Amino acid sequence: MTTDTLVPGRRARVDGSVRIVGAGLLGSSIGHALSQNGVDVRLTDTSPAQLRLAIDYGAGSAATDADDPVLVVVCTPPDVVADVIEAELTAFPHAVVTDVASVKLEPLRALRERGVDLTNYIGSHPLAGRERGGAISARADIFTGRPWVVCRDGETPSRALALVEALALDLDAVPIEMTPEEHDRSVALVSHVPQVVASLLAARFADAPEQALSLAGQGARDTTRIAASSPELWVQILAANADPIVEQLDLLANDLRAVADALRAPDAPGARRTTADAIRGGNVGVERLPGKHGSRRRFESLVVMVDDTSGQLGRLFGDLGDLGVNVEDFRLEHSPGAPLGLAEIAVVPAAVQPTVDGLTSRGWRIASTGD
Amino acid sequence: MTTDTLVPGRRARVDGSVRIVGAGLLGSSIGHALSQNGVDVRLTDTSPAQLRLAIDYGAGSAATDADDPVLVVVCTPPDVVADVIEAELTAFPHAVVTDVASVKLEPLRALRERGVDLTNYIGSHPLAGRERGGAISARADIFTGRPWVVCRDGETPSRALALVEALALDLDAVPIEMTPEEHDRSVALVSHVPQVVASLLAARFADAPEQALSLAGQGARDTTRIAASSPELWVQILAANADPIVEQLDLLANDLRAVADALRAPDAPGARRTTADAIRGGNVGVERLPGKHGSRRRFESLVVMVDDTSGQLGRLFGDLGDLGVNVEDFRLEHSPGAPLGLAEIAVVPAAVQPTVDGLTSRGWRIASTGD
Repeated sequence: MTTDTLVPGRRARVDGSVRIVGAGLLGSSIGHALSQNGVDVRLTDTSPAQLRLAIDYGAGSAATDADDPVLVVVCTPPDVVADVIEAELTAFPHAVVTDVASVKLEPLRALRERGVDLTNYIGSHPLAGRERGGAISARADIFTGRPWVVCRDGETPSRALALVEALALDLDAVPIEMTPEEHDRSVALVSHVPQVVASLLAARFADAPEQALSLAGQGARDTTRIAASSPELWVQILAANADPIVEQLDLLANDLRAVADALRAPDAPGARRTTADAIRGGNVGVERLPGKHGSRRRFESLVVMVDDTSGQLGRLFGDLGDLGVNVEDFRLEHSPGAPLGLAEIAVVPAAVQPTVDGLTSRGWRIASTGD
Repeated sequence: MTTDTLVPGRRARVDGSVRIVGAGLLGSSIGHALSQNGVDVRLTDTSPAQLRLAIDYGAGSAATDADDPVLVVVCTPPDVVADVIEAELTAFPHAVVTDVASVKLEPLRALRERGVDLTNYIGSHPLAGRERGGAISARADIFTGRPWVVCRDGETPSRALALVEALALDLDAVPIEMTPEEHDRSVALVSHVPQVVASLLAARFADAPEQALSLAGQGARDTTRIAASSPELWVQILAANADPIVEQLDLLANDLRAVADALRAPDAPGARRTTADAIRGGNVGVERLPGKHGSRRRFESLVVMVDDTSGQLGRLFGDLGDLGVNVEDFRLEHSPGAPLGLAEIAVVPAAVQPTVDGLTSRGWRIASTGD
């Protein structure tokens, strides 16, 4: 129950004890970050082993019946989140209760149907995560610079809103206010539908001849990377946000069908145009995605040829450091069995020529430049 | 017409002059590689500017009427490839003619319909390329370690097959024999269908609210990266390989529809199972894709926290070099606006623990390990 700051010069905005229900990746990561800011964090989890791990790693201390939190953060799996929110609102009537579930409307609807008083509840969703879950993967910094959606509605008291936004700011996240509907439609578009598409595309590789897959390159790998995600979690997420996902999947299935029809009858009126529009529409859409620090367009890339050894990459980054180049993004191109690699480096446009000159004078071969 | 080797200890397998028709990315890259191996390369292109650029950069010399090539490599856009193959077979009746088009059945069908004598023709397809095209982006090493499909059929004389395989080997590619049908079905699955899917998915972002796109993360970016591809080229490729693409698109549209139906009626028999199977099938498929040096499973990854500066990456790779760690793959995780980054490093399983120990003792924070 302290607001002393452990990090010099840093004072937590959240003033009071925070209770975290569910000590998995998100719960433990929030615990780590708040604890580092001097906030008193009380943890609980249905799994004693998970709870022990989170506490041992410094995410907080074990919750007790005597706790009097100002804020409860529910970090349970999606299928129990409404039950837990209801229980926490009852157990801690003076606390603001939030949750971090990746779907916002369904738990709200469930709580309203049960007639739960939601004055003290405000849903939120930090757009943060890792491919691996659990307390063991927790890290205080996974929220840094990431969006943290806070779902206010007309009834939300400003005290609750301010407290959850303070939580986001304490974790170095960027609070974004949306309605639950806006949130759910948005994540359907940029997260849930891409997951379904990547999974179904990758599923077509499951029974494909080995020889066919031997021709796969970086494009196939990138397009299906997230297909490695957990079925248990995703079945819950997709079920909880079914309406906007279904809407998008129907549109996408229609688009696929239209391209298939256009390719089937290439001389039909508009057929070539349908195909071209699909690829052109993709050009437009992909350009609108935010990149590392905003839009991709802010950076240009250059490609350096490297022997595929860490020593070479060490020398390259050493040289880039000497040259004062700030690397905005980096990608090592795959090439099965190849002894050579291609290091693609993104820099601000003004840095392209000095970087090329500097690297060339140090003996590096530049394969290409341009965005 | 020399077989002297410019690279010490290296002797080109292709014995004689090579004529390259089309001095774009692939034609110029082949020219560079062969020229470096001491092969006499003669280039031609319908664009004098492109030809001049390729020659200036060292891809070969300008073709003349007096040339007597042993091998002609047709590197034109897909829509004219059959015409050019026919013209080359007529102009150089003693040469073997191959092409590098990414679709193999359609030009063959067109040539057969015209009654062209195909004894000296053998199609091929190097699975190499770059996001940027043109002679200016050409590089001798883009074929290194990549598959190079050679499409033999019953009538293919072994001399022609041997010569095209020699070309692939001279370019450090890996020749793979397939029938044109096998090839086209394979690239439909691992290249053409992923392109259509990524484009249509990204096209849904074209009119999306800015706020929705602000929630996009690495998953959305990876899944749609190839949507930045050229519409001109892809309209041609898709049209030329329509049959196997349409077949896959229909299956995929059905799969999308099935998941949409399952989400629409979650209590219908088998609904939950349909969704789970989609995600699980994706798990299986993505694991089968070849990685950098074969399957992904051969490597495990560890994630190191780095300040987002090239100096830090330089120190990291320097330390990895000192520790004798061979980095099999590397990925810098994006985080909009974040001052911290995550460097994901793939190593052979036996190297994980020594790498973690070595980096930790040098003050690095390891965020996680595991594959």
